[in-house]
Amino acid sequence: MSNQSNPHSRGCFITVEGTEGVGKTTNIAWIRQCLTSYGIDPVMTREPGGTNLSEEIRALLLEPREEPMAEMTELLLIFAARAQHLARKIVPALDQGQWVLCDRFTDATYAYQGGGRSLDKSTISHLETLVQADLRPDLVLILDIEPEIGLQRARQRGEPDRFEQETLQFFRRVRAAYQERASQDPTRYLLIDAGQSLDKVQHQIQTGMAAFMSRRLAT
Amino acid sequence: MSNQSNPHSRGCFITVEGTEGVGKTTNIAWIRQCLTSYGIDPVMTREPGGTNLSEEIRALLLEPREEPMAEMTELLLIFAARAQHLARKIVPALDQGQWVLCDRFTDATYAYQGGGRSLDKSTISHLETLVQADLRPDLVLILDIEPEIGLQRARQRGEPDRFEQETLQFFRRVRAAYQERASQDPTRYLLIDAGQSLDKVQHQIQTGMAAFMSRRLAT
Repeated sequence: MSNQSNPHSRGCFITVEGTEGVGKTTNIAWIRQCLTSYGIDPVMTREPGGTNLSEEIRALLLEPREEPMAEMTELLLIFAARAQHLARKIVPALDQGQWVLCDRFTDATYAYQGGGRSLDKSTISHLETLVQADLRPDLVLILDIEPEIGLQRARQRGEPDRFEQETLQFFRRVRAAYQERASQDPTRYLLIDAGQSLDKVQHQIQTGMAAFMSRRLAT
Repeated sequence: MSNQSNPHSRGCFITVEGTEGVGKTTNIAWIRQCLTSYGIDPVMTREPGGTNLSEEIRALLLEPREEPMAEMTELLLIFAARAQHLARKIVPALDQGQWVLCDRFTDATYAYQGGGRSLDKSTISHLETLVQADLRPDLVLILDIEPEIGLQRARQRGEPDRFEQETLQFFRRVRAAYQERASQDPTRYLLIDAGQSLDKVQHQIQTGMAAFMSRRLAT
């Protein structure tokens, strides 16, 4: 059943999270395929990015540079890109009843800037409310893996970006923050053990998506 | 007497504000000359900008583009640039006892985004505290002019940037916001009638600076 057949109902916002090398690209394609089997053709997008301007902000964020970026600069650039992405792409799509599948969103900010950089969670939470009001993802899939394994994979892909250059300790804090968020709201968060074989990862995703879809279609 | 002779005392932070075409460049050169006569060689900088990264953010802010920039994106980009400018340039200079003379600062945000775009002042104030803690300029010179006259001058300078393309109504609100801020704290703010002849404008600045310097040197 396609939600898009009813332009008056609000769409659904699904985000996918995880540290470097966790297999996000492959698994997002699989999540999309799961949605397709329900007749849903989601808007595919990513953060930071998703619009021309937000992609320009993404480039500022990821590019390694001589001038060290202040932590507050990083946090505000991320939310600036997010405000633009929401205003120009995500909210209009949801308002039209479309489903949106987004590679990373605000959970990444809690994980990377809150966990990784140890920034104050209440600062992130205040910016979240400022930029998103009460908009939160309907479902967050967190792909979870040992940072050692993920980083090994990610570093085979070529030049590391500004985040990929971080230490193993950093990514351990990021992972812990993701896990903590998942544990606080097990209905809205789906924690996927992405260290298993692709088959098993896909099975976990499919089962979790089926449970979400049956809840969603029941409401 | 140069403040720089005593590296243990904190420097002084002076900002210059005003709408388009008010003669900021000429008058900032004059303010610098006034400081030089007291033996002070200020760090010259500007907002948005002041560091390589902040200048890249400035370019995003000023460039006219097809994709309309959300107001919240603009506000967060401005504070992102400011956080970087403070961390990498302004605060280190002040900590070393240097004086900093900055072309625009947070009063411009209250005037352009608060006044011009009618964004909530409490939102700006919250971001100000987040990014600056209790750092505020020691002296703000506001160059005040009828927006009609200023815009006429500014538009002779070539292609207008994203702000210069705004309406006269917008600049009237910006000016009113600047005037309101000046009236609330006449000690810290110096409102200069920049519609007069250059001689008279320079005389106002010189007199105001002399009063500020005598207060400053007395403390």
